[in-house]
Amino acid sequence: MTSMTQTETRTPLPALPRTMKAVVKATAGPGAEIKDVPVPSCGAGDLLLRVLRAGVCGTDLHIYEWDRWAQDRVRVGVTTGHEFVGEIVAMGAQVQNWRLGDRVSCESHIVDGTCLACRTGNAHVCENTRILGVDVNGGFAEFVAVPAQNAWRAPANVPVEVAAVMEPCGNAVHTAFSGPLSACTIAVTGCGPIGLFAIGVARAAGASLVIASDISPYRLDLARRMKADVVVDVTKEDFVQRVRETTGGRMLDGVLEMSGSAPAIREGLAALRNGGRLSLLGLPRENFELDWNRLVIFKGVTVHGIIGRRMYETWYQLDNMLTSGRLDLKPAITHVLPMEKFHDAIALLRSGNAGKVVLVPWGQAA
Amino acid sequence: MTSMTQTETRTPLPALPRTMKAVVKATAGPGAEIKDVPVPSCGAGDLLLRVLRAGVCGTDLHIYEWDRWAQDRVRVGVTTGHEFVGEIVAMGAQVQNWRLGDRVSCESHIVDGTCLACRTGNAHVCENTRILGVDVNGGFAEFVAVPAQNAWRAPANVPVEVAAVMEPCGNAVHTAFSGPLSACTIAVTGCGPIGLFAIGVARAAGASLVIASDISPYRLDLARRMKADVVVDVTKEDFVQRVRETTGGRMLDGVLEMSGSAPAIREGLAALRNGGRLSLLGLPRENFELDWNRLVIFKGVTVHGIIGRRMYETWYQLDNMLTSGRLDLKPAITHVLPMEKFHDAIALLRSGNAGKVVLVPWGQAA
Amino acid sequence: MTSMTQTETRTPLPALPRTMKAVVKATAGPGAEIKDVPVPSCGAGDLLLRVLRAGVCGTDLHIYEWDRWAQDRVRVGVTTGHEFVGEIVAMGAQVQNWRLGDRVSCESHIVDGTCLACRTGNAHVCENTRILGVDVNGGFAEFVAVPAQNAWRAPANVPVEVAAVMEPCGNAVHTAFSGPLSACTIAVTGCGPIGLFAIGVARAAGASLVIASDISPYRLDLARRMKADVVVDVTKEDFVQRVRETTGGRMLDGVLEMSGSAPAIREGLAALRNGGRLSLLGLPRENFELDWNRLVIFKGVTVHGIIGRRMYETWYQLDNMLTSGRLDLKPAITHVLPMEKFHDAIALLRSGNAGKVVLVPWGQAA
Amino acid sequence: MTSMTQTETRTPLPALPRTMKAVVKATAGPGAEIKDVPVPSCGAGDLLLRVLRAGVCGTDLHIYEWDRWAQDRVRVGVTTGHEFVGEIVAMGAQVQNWRLGDRVSCESHIVDGTCLACRTGNAHVCENTRILGVDVNGGFAEFVAVPAQNAWRAPANVPVEVAAVMEPCGNAVHTAFSGPLSACTIAVTGCGPIGLFAIGVARAAGASLVIASDISPYRLDLARRMKADVVVDVTKEDFVQRVRETTGGRMLDGVLEMSGSAPAIREGLAALRNGGRLSLLGLPRENFELDWNRLVIFKGVTVHGIIGRRMYETWYQLDNMLTSGRLDLKPAITHVLPMEKFHDAIALLRSGNAGKVVLVPWGQAA
Repeated sequence: MTSMTQTETRTPLPALPRTMKAVVKATAGPGAEIKDVPVPSCGAGDLLLRVLRAGVCGTDLHIYEWDRWAQDRVRVGVTTGHEFVGEIVAMGAQVQNWRLGDRVSCESHIVDGTCLACRTGNAHVCENTRILGVDVNGGFAEFVAVPAQNAWRAPANVPVEVAAVMEPCGNAVHTAFSGPLSACTIAVTGCGPIGLFAIGVARAAGASLVIASDISPYRLDLARRMKADVVVDVTKEDFVQRVRETTGGRMLDGVLEMSGSAPAIREGLAALRNGGRLSLLGLPRENFELDWNRLVIFKGVTVHGIIGRRMYETWYQLDNMLTSGRLDLKPAITHVLPMEKFHDAIALLRSGNAGKVVLVPWGQAA
Repeated sequence: MTSMTQTETRTPLPALPRTMKAVVKATAGPGAEIKDVPVPSCGAGDLLLRVLRAGVCGTDLHIYEWDRWAQDRVRVGVTTGHEFVGEIVAMGAQVQNWRLGDRVSCESHIVDGTCLACRTGNAHVCENTRILGVDVNGGFAEFVAVPAQNAWRAPANVPVEVAAVMEPCGNAVHTAFSGPLSACTIAVTGCGPIGLFAIGVARAAGASLVIASDISPYRLDLARRMKADVVVDVTKEDFVQRVRETTGGRMLDGVLEMSGSAPAIREGLAALRNGGRLSLLGLPRENFELDWNRLVIFKGVTVHGIIGRRMYETWYQLDNMLTSGRLDLKPAITHVLPMEKFHDAIALLRSGNAGKVVLVPWGQAA
Repeated sequence: MTSMTQTETRTPLPALPRTMKAVVKATAGPGAEIKDVPVPSCGAGDLLLRVLRAGVCGTDLHIYEWDRWAQDRVRVGVTTGHEFVGEIVAMGAQVQNWRLGDRVSCESHIVDGTCLACRTGNAHVCENTRILGVDVNGGFAEFVAVPAQNAWRAPANVPVEVAAVMEPCGNAVHTAFSGPLSACTIAVTGCGPIGLFAIGVARAAGASLVIASDISPYRLDLARRMKADVVVDVTKEDFVQRVRETTGGRMLDGVLEMSGSAPAIREGLAALRNGGRLSLLGLPRENFELDWNRLVIFKGVTVHGIIGRRMYETWYQLDNMLTSGRLDLKPAITHVLPMEKFHDAIALLRSGNAGKVVLVPWGQAA
Repeated sequence: MTSMTQTETRTPLPALPRTMKAVVKATAGPGAEIKDVPVPSCGAGDLLLRVLRAGVCGTDLHIYEWDRWAQDRVRVGVTTGHEFVGEIVAMGAQVQNWRLGDRVSCESHIVDGTCLACRTGNAHVCENTRILGVDVNGGFAEFVAVPAQNAWRAPANVPVEVAAVMEPCGNAVHTAFSGPLSACTIAVTGCGPIGLFAIGVARAAGASLVIASDISPYRLDLARRMKADVVVDVTKEDFVQRVRETTGGRMLDGVLEMSGSAPAIREGLAALRNGGRLSLLGLPRENFELDWNRLVIFKGVTVHGIIGRRMYETWYQLDNMLTSGRLDLKPAITHVLPMEKFHDAIALLRSGNAGKVVLVPWGQAA
């Protein structure tokens, strides 16, 4: 990656403008538009942030390409972007515990707080979640308004680019922490950005062996830089066999599935020890079949469906790993671009030759 | 059912004969043969049991029909039957803590005791399990030899027919206890014998609502007799809708899947609340596909593959429920036949108009 | 008990008065005063309730007697009472999902929502909890204002007296559910109101054996009526010995400690099986010593400190048990008195010859 | 420490002698005797080991000093020593899966395999445990016989001195793994050998912050070498205050108590966050009292009593951490002495100026 700004100078807060630049899903079709929009208003319980950095996610690619999921889900006209860090420039009347200038990363799920899930510590599966950058205006913009309860103080010791990607790294943490990690043998199948984060997370969280698999030499090289103990190019090697050799036949305690690929899921199950766990974060593109008896039932396997981040246990865990320096995400952040070049960022993602791509809004020095 | 013998008179042990009658898988093809075979020898760590009652299982039907699974797995020449209760008539030299005449039920999995699973409290998924009545001679016979460590003292207060089916009921207990039960809303999908047991188990274990589903009015009637709070005939009613109405929209905390039916599994997942659990015991007849995103990942569901019984936590749990009288299995035992009529028992199972069928060996008074 | 009103007629809402009667901790010394106070104002996020019934708690006795804890903790001038059910007579502007006339029970802990505990699903140990009837005005009054998020819809099928004591019964649920219950052998040490509730809860939640102990024949009789399987008068019998006999030497899986008595805690630990759990809700009156090696460490015991109710998992669990009819609290409610007779209620508690005492506010028909 | 032998040459097995030297608890009083005893016979299920190294434990000091515990528990005449690694020189007739020359470390608890604890995955709290070096002859000798099922293959990559102390390090693993570790803030109170191991274990298992406390500058220096993030000399600093500062007020997720000191336990509880856990391994010398309300109940704390090692989950975990190189125990092993100098080893332990002391039997080259 280019460079990461360890210390961002806190500038005196300017008078807020009325309009700003933003990446908007302007029409119900492929693409996105950079246009002038009003600076968001800041509700009574909200923080208004000047966006410092924002990460581009696979979801943003789906929105750009306007696939079926996007057509069903995304509000046309929305300012996109759900991974970002910003500086507080205004606060609603009911906000406490924050100060102007504080740097915050954000949980992107705005939950109802009243459903069974929310009321039992499982707000990540709230029945009425609204998502920043999908349902409500997000962070590919100069400013964004967020509920104060979704804000997380960015650790002082991490570069602003890392603070920008705490949300997707939280997905990796949630997936990894959904089963045992300490002293375990863990595989991460799929080395896109969240898979890369998961490698670092599994190591920082105490896994004794982290095996990473993918089909891209570019990504496998990044996996090595995130300190995977073993990397497997599944176009050239048999995954289950490599696991057998590496573990001395004990096989895996857990698989963190980040690819959404049916073969990866089947091989992940096959490479688990009896009684192991498979945690599924990657979204399969279509339905697929499974030999349930051989791969799940006879093995006594546990399968976890994972979405979002535990609110806010996941954030405390991630914060602890970043603050202590046990977890370093920098090798997974391969590109930092001006937000103006959003279309180039999308092209990079499509090419597959990128880890996490981070954008710098207008008016911010990279 | 016909009648259950509350108190079995303990007869003086006769001199053991050399041969006995048994139901043998004599040839590599459909069917089974009742024939004279040697009385099993009793190894140093074994108990020799006079069989009092034996249950017939769906697995026995697979062996009888000689389907693909049976062809791959079953040893030709084996005495079948893996659910039974017997009276100790001889003991090996190393056996302690047992006395002649003790009545014992049996865990059917003979495990190696040395693999990772066995050494970490998960012997039910031992990598080298051998099964009574499949790999080694079982209990459809006058006598059976079993390792003393597989024996479980039958609770004094239950009829001998109930003691005979602790093994399959243990499957129900293991499935039910693989997730939260107390004060939970639970569905049992599939009301074959283990499903029927699971209804009783879920109630005895503290589920606040037990919903049972099946396609057979005969079985749904048995489900009612096992005290299901709600029964759903899925040929006539929409399962998910009935769950929604019955739970006031909160949906299910857990599903105990006993049918192996793909639609039942899909509907079970659809009827779970976000964050719920699906425990799979029923074996699907073939691979099937799933909308993983909608049914598992977005809902944050946990899926447990279940096999066998936890050794021996499950047996303690079952024992406690039977001994206390909280669990009554009798309504699920619909037929008690002489073992001589084994072919009739198979026909009953095929007809679907039976709950659990229990056999009485030669020389035993029903 | 006298009688319980199964169906409360919903009366047309009267114009609210300016003042009301309430039980107030008027001075920093023993006693309490019934006096006229302003009807509480209803904040933007609050519900104003007409109190229908209120339970008297041991804590109220501490406040009355003005012991050291009360001197340190209680705000002089507060309207006391933290267990109650009421009918909504007014709602703040921000309140959603409620309607006038709804009958609600209340969680008494008002939490900050921002500390680590609150943000990780453990709001019951919030670092800044304020308690109704202790820190802020409570329910021994004609009206009480509560945050809408603390309100729980009272199950339609339970009498109003039962709805009034969901809060203390939630303590029993939290204690019981802090470890395994299903198919377990459980003791409840101390049969005051929460102990009595815990007996019913443990049974409804699937414990196979519930043993209750106390020193009062009156309370042990109530324990029997709550369906304890075994009751032990520890003034006459050896608790550990009775447990040994009753469990056939297996000892207890769990102890729910409700007495705060040092001997009860020591005997509870001694009666646990190795690896069992002790859940402590009863508050010891003073520090006491323990043979940690013999009772805790060598036995591999787990000890849980319990306070409040899990917010709101406990409430869902309790609601399910009450709604299904699995749990019946009525035998534990021994007295229903007019709130005007508050001093008599305190005397009853002091006498020990009472289970739960419930008060009927002025203007309510019992 | 002096030096550690990375590769031990496998010598051709000599004809076994009839007698050997051993450290024997010869009389019912203080001290121990080095004397000639018969080489142990090797039962049908046993391995006979030539001892390569043996660790000295605090328990050995108790036996030496013949305190009350030792008087009640230890068999006079026993060969002491329960921490050791050896090379197989003979095997019983029933032993499988092992070969002469294999190097094995040993679980010191010989369990009955039939009690509730053993049958439910909790053999570490077996009701009838016999301990090597306490109840049956142990490893302070040239040879020792052990049940094959207690043997653990020593990881090939660790020095023989490290393999000798897997048993006490297993205590540390068991304590640490009795609650959450990954991304947690953990304190280890007491930096004797097991405390020192626990520091390394907590780090290897993914704790984000490890704080160590003791009263000895010598031991705190060792704690630093085991990579504690923070060390606290409680004779000079306030433990709770240091925790508060170091964690930014969040306090500890867990305390691993290794001292048995009442003040350390009280301060450990005080330094826990609400809802945290205290795992007790250190044995208090006498009963002591606690402010249960303030330190346990109001905080919602969980206290775990810990003994032995989970059999054999703990060994798999430890093996994984050692094999992967995540855990390095060498800095905690401060002295390697000839077994002939056993009395000097005891003096070293008494002085407090030692970490783990390892002994080299007669005829072994250090």
